[in-house]
Amino acid sequence: MKKSELVKEIKEKGTFLCVGLDTDIKKVPECVKGEEDPIFAFNKAIIDATAPYCVAYKPNLAFYESMGVKGWISFEKTIKYLNENYPKHFIIADAKRGDIGNTSMMYARTFFEEMNIDAVTVAPYMGEDSVTPFLQYDGKWVVLLALTSNKGSHDFQLTEDKDGERLFEKVLKRSQEWASDETMMYVVGATQGRMFEDVRKLVPNHFLLVPGIGAQGGSLEEVCKYGMTADCGLLVNSSRAIIYADSSERFAEVAAEEAKKVATQMAKILNDKQ
Amino acid sequence: MKKSELVKEIKEKGTFLCVGLDTDIKKVPECVKGEEDPIFAFNKAIIDATAPYCVAYKPNLAFYESMGVKGWISFEKTIKYLNENYPKHFIIADAKRGDIGNTSMMYARTFFEEMNIDAVTVAPYMGEDSVTPFLQYDGKWVVLLALTSNKGSHDFQLTEDKDGERLFEKVLKRSQEWASDETMMYVVGATQGRMFEDVRKLVPNHFLLVPGIGAQGGSLEEVCKYGMTADCGLLVNSSRAIIYADSSERFAEVAAEEAKKVATQMAKILNDKQ
Repeated sequence: MKKSELVKEIKEKGTFLCVGLDTDIKKVPECVKGEEDPIFAFNKAIIDATAPYCVAYKPNLAFYESMGVKGWISFEKTIKYLNENYPKHFIIADAKRGDIGNTSMMYARTFFEEMNIDAVTVAPYMGEDSVTPFLQYDGKWVVLLALTSNKGSHDFQLTEDKDGERLFEKVLKRSQEWASDETMMYVVGATQGRMFEDVRKLVPNHFLLVPGIGAQGGSLEEVCKYGMTADCGLLVNSSRAIIYADSSERFAEVAAEEAKKVATQMAKILNDKQ
Repeated sequence: MKKSELVKEIKEKGTFLCVGLDTDIKKVPECVKGEEDPIFAFNKAIIDATAPYCVAYKPNLAFYESMGVKGWISFEKTIKYLNENYPKHFIIADAKRGDIGNTSMMYARTFFEEMNIDAVTVAPYMGEDSVTPFLQYDGKWVVLLALTSNKGSHDFQLTEDKDGERLFEKVLKRSQEWASDETMMYVVGATQGRMFEDVRKLVPNHFLLVPGIGAQGGSLEEVCKYGMTADCGLLVNSSRAIIYADSSERFAEVAAEEAKKVATQMAKILNDKQ
């Protein structure tokens, strides 16, 4: 999907919500556990219910891999279902991959050729040749980790070099030599608050994928105040707070209500911004 | 596997070779392509042929994932085969994972609970809480990326902070607060040459997993000169130079010859060191 198409979707629907499909077999409601493929059944119900309120879905690979072959089958079925039924939704494989060139190329093949996924999250630690193999596909995206939402983000990402440049800033700068804002986005955690100002100084036009509202405690208002651009420039993710909002037979309905709540806030913010 | 057991294996067999099972369906010999599961058939033949010359196997997940569900089946069969037939060989899942705590826990569950793998490679960018969930399992290991073998390793890993400490050194230091040399190893690329001296100043006793000899051009002699400890302290990996040494029906035999050549060099180095 091209950047202009994503922006168009956001403006038309008045939402920049990304629903995180972090589907844990230990957390899905009892009522889907009897299904042949409970993970896919759960995802399908969540997708159908939340699609009007979001523009993107982000399955985190860890949750599928933890179930081995079965999990991969559920993952592939979910991607296929999205592609067939919701082709305008942006799909992000949250995989946080990154390896030597030869190997990153294999990962890129998996996500972009085998499955028709729009974007993959990539870790920057191994540098340029671990990232560029993901950039060879037209209309596909790298979402590079910059400043993550977790406590450990402070361990290395904030390290200042001799000139006072922090590691996440170096990542934002260097990586712009590899790709433009048409094929690269960055992960910046909602929990980072005012740091969005610093991020925007370096990447004024890039889309940011923002995890950390909901269960992790980040604030949507703050993220938008400091991170929003004229093109919106944000995909704000919520996983647990939406998909596990209810564990009864009404789980999908309640997930839709939660997604709608966030989308309503988002519509207001987008409207105020204009 | 405990550190003492690994050291014992290395000393008894006179080798510290790790064979990288980076099995690419596009590169396996014609003669296995007709098999029902050509990836597993190839791995099985390579394992049986090279087992006397190595103490570890390291399948890189990218190669399996690139084939989706089929690839995961081959991967699981390979791990099961190793566990059942070569329980003394150390198994490293080269996955370079790392995510927020909640998610890293899922990855740990996959590799350590679902499959009986000894170690997982983990990327440090997201800090402490992305790594520690992998450390909750007795006898299991984290192999943390420190100084990788690729060109891009220079992009961020060598960045100096205000006190002249480079990022990989910070990773080596900070991570020792999370785990001891009984559960943590580090990736240091063979292509880094004399940098092994700097690494050893910070981690004099830890095992290092060393990729980059063979196809990537690192030197075994140099790695050992600057990186070897009294306990050996090295697992030196070779993937392509061994497993793809020949593409005829003799592929496994030739792989064994290549593994034996490296093992012979290793035995001499171990012997000279004592």
